[in-house]
Amino acid sequence: MATSCIFCKIIKNEIPCTKIYENDKVLAFLDIAPVNFGHALVMPKKHFETILDIDDESLCEIAKVTKKVSRAIMKAMKSDGINIGVNNYKAAGQLVPHMHLHVMPRFKDDGLKFDWPTKKDGNMEKTADKIRKAL
Amino acid sequence: MATSCIFCKIIKNEIPCTKIYENDKVLAFLDIAPVNFGHALVMPKKHFETILDIDDESLCEIAKVTKKVSRAIMKAMKSDGINIGVNNYKAAGQLVPHMHLHVMPRFKDDGLKFDWPTKKDGNMEKTADKIRKAL
Repeated sequence: MATSCIFCKIIKNEIPCTKIYENDKVLAFLDIAPVNFGHALVMPKKHFETILDIDDESLCEIAKVTKKVSRAIMKAMKSDGINIGVNNYKAAGQLVPHMHLHVMPRFKDDGLKFDWPTKKDGNMEKTADKIRKAL
Repeated sequence: MATSCIFCKIIKNEIPCTKIYENDKVLAFLDIAPVNFGHALVMPKKHFETILDIDDESLCEIAKVTKKVSRAIMKAMKSDGINIGVNNYKAAGQLVPHMHLHVMPRFKDDGLKFDWPTKKDGNMEKTADKIRKAL
């Protein structure tokens, strides 16, 4: 537990949340600022800053709960789709440095868009080679 | 395998890709339209439409490979962060109906933003109750 972490405080019941699911390792609750109603956060109870830090056992548990919660949100909110996202580090938009997944129900014509411009990598083989060497 | 699926064809080596990692169950390759160089796709070799359909064993394997690949992309591209996203169904922006995760390196001041407006749910407890009942 990180003593100053707001999510650790929620996990310890020191700050309230609107819980939807929990087990020994994982907690899921509603985001207080949903992009659509039913937008939830899924997180490990143990403090890890990002997905790059988490151990494989906790990661598998998080993944399984995310699938379970996504199915329930689709069904309960009668949504047409689900976006799942994890932002790692501030440069990627992570606001609370305790790993969490956003599970966001989506509806046809809800007006939300991914409009990030794409680039053309003139030397993909070189890029891939750098990544393969870092594995 | 779904015979008309473009990702199944890539997995079967019928269509080329710029591979960064593979094992028995998972393939990762570079997106041809990256938001930043190093943007990769990670997917199960077996055809599942979305994360809601995948079996737990394949899901855990995908999650572990995504962590591994994310670390390598951060290191190789010297990025400041990583976004991971899964779009499930067309309403959520899924273009190819074969489950895949986007792993996108991010840089300070790269200009990419999450600017989806948020809402206020006046009855979060009722929303949570609907989801809990659907679990």
